[in-house]
Amino acid sequence: MLDIEFFRSGFNNYLEKKLISKPPLNLYEPITYIMDLGGKRLRPVLTLISTDVFGGNYEEAMDAALAIEIFHNFSLVHDDIMDAAPIRRGEKTVHKKWDINTGILSGDVMLINSYQYFENYPPELFKSLLKVFSKTAIEVCEGQQYDMDFEASEDVTIPDYLKMITYKTAVLVAAALKMGAIISNASLNSQDAIYDYGINLGIAFQLQDDYLDAFGDPETFGKQVGGDIIENKKTFLYLKSIEIGAEDQINELKDLFSIKPTNPKEKIETVKAIYIQSGAAEIIKKEIKHYTQQAFQLLESIEAPENKKEILKEFGNRLMNREV
Amino acid sequence: MLDIEFFRSGFNNYLEKKLISKPPLNLYEPITYIMDLGGKRLRPVLTLISTDVFGGNYEEAMDAALAIEIFHNFSLVHDDIMDAAPIRRGEKTVHKKWDINTGILSGDVMLINSYQYFENYPPELFKSLLKVFSKTAIEVCEGQQYDMDFEASEDVTIPDYLKMITYKTAVLVAAALKMGAIISNASLNSQDAIYDYGINLGIAFQLQDDYLDAFGDPETFGKQVGGDIIENKKTFLYLKSIEIGAEDQINELKDLFSIKPTNPKEKIETVKAIYIQSGAAEIIKKEIKHYTQQAFQLLESIEAPENKKEILKEFGNRLMNREV
Repeated sequence: MLDIEFFRSGFNNYLEKKLISKPPLNLYEPITYIMDLGGKRLRPVLTLISTDVFGGNYEEAMDAALAIEIFHNFSLVHDDIMDAAPIRRGEKTVHKKWDINTGILSGDVMLINSYQYFENYPPELFKSLLKVFSKTAIEVCEGQQYDMDFEASEDVTIPDYLKMITYKTAVLVAAALKMGAIISNASLNSQDAIYDYGINLGIAFQLQDDYLDAFGDPETFGKQVGGDIIENKKTFLYLKSIEIGAEDQINELKDLFSIKPTNPKEKIETVKAIYIQSGAAEIIKKEIKHYTQQAFQLLESIEAPENKKEILKEFGNRLMNREV
Repeated sequence: MLDIEFFRSGFNNYLEKKLISKPPLNLYEPITYIMDLGGKRLRPVLTLISTDVFGGNYEEAMDAALAIEIFHNFSLVHDDIMDAAPIRRGEKTVHKKWDINTGILSGDVMLINSYQYFENYPPELFKSLLKVFSKTAIEVCEGQQYDMDFEASEDVTIPDYLKMITYKTAVLVAAALKMGAIISNASLNSQDAIYDYGINLGIAFQLQDDYLDAFGDPETFGKQVGGDIIENKKTFLYLKSIEIGAEDQINELKDLFSIKPTNPKEKIETVKAIYIQSGAAEIIKKEIKHYTQQAFQLLESIEAPENKKEILKEFGNRLMNREV
């Protein structure tokens, strides 16, 4: 039985062979730099897994997996410019190590390169994959735009927020899975079901990320606990508290989200208390459970051998336990 | 006989129908803004002309033409950020009217949109067109990188410069023509010949642009005469003067290209005099003639009715006379 680590190391080997710097070096070195920073390769691994689950040869999915990983990293490079983020995976972001122009142009080339990796597929498959890819790419950009718009907006609703995280995070996970199904010539029903599995898992993961950012264990979360609160980020917990909290909770929360104290410790504790007292913390836990269960239910309707489906369940479980 | 204006107005009508702003407006309004600024639509018109020349139905080339024009405008939006350009076609550039983040993300969406416009073509044709498109898109980005690299470099050669303008300008013109040939199912020989016609015409046009920037008529040139000299831009005239000029000419030129005087009038006159005295002005005129003649010779080897080819000759002539 092939396992997640098998697919990950297979992908990393393939990636390493494909990443070659060439002139103009100022354009291509930032690309090998960001790709070499690592990351968990979750999306390409999902494409390989999905291909295998539906009876295809995972090696034929390598180029699609590569395209998705390059695209994902393109979006990180451009998002990091827009978010003025100095650090990515513990190292300098591209626009910090080089400059903004380098980030823009190297990112552009990565986006075009990701299309080119599909050129090894025959025309019918090439077109099917690209239609999914382009649609997803547009949604990822729209998600980033909504995310930036929300920073400046006072009337973001929970449905708005769910749409934003769906576009910004879940659709690429879903598309990665669907591409494997397309490569393996799975039925349209299965293509849709695995896509929806990805959407639900992606939303569950992002909501859990919101939860752990406030209530996670600093030892295991991987990011700074309280980071969203420090940055006044309107996450599900914030929006839900504003929606259902008592008037004094809402006012205090809005006040706290209008400041950035040098020592944020007290602010973090107060905000967390409001998240609990308002009921938002309980609701997000239920939502995470809901989307996770929905994801696993969708696996039922996928036409694939049960023993093959196990790896998707394992992936989902390990993802939600932050072990993948 | 269909003429250039016919194709241009047909394209503009098609473009107008396709450009619709939608939410998120901060993402899509900048796209309709830049597309509405106009421009001569030279590249899409060439795709339509080429399709017609090779016996195809120009209306089937509309989506390819649209993709090329959107891509061209994507490259302008991102280049204008990199070049810190405030004005485009007499109006504010996207990053000036909005901000840099908007320019980056709207540009990204335009690039992805340009791929999507090809989705109306059947799979074989879709793939053929996209291979040309992606290869060209990469070259355009590499051209922009070389252009930026040259700003900081002291040893740019004439072949380096010709490669840069080929990538930055000529390949997209050439690809626009080749796509028409592909849509009309022209022979590979004809596809190559029309591509090379585009390359030579593009180089001739860009070299003429360098020439007119120094020696053009302010009444008709359209841009500020002397602009390249004010900006210390290493054009063909500068590089050739450095290559073949006398030592005192080279030294004076290098000195003048290290300053940006508030009143540049005297600098412009001195630089122009060196361009003439060094022989560079005569050489560029010969080169423009050489590439133009090469372009027209390539039309001979194209397998298409002579009366159909006339429009390509007319286009080339009008382009070089700045009348198109």
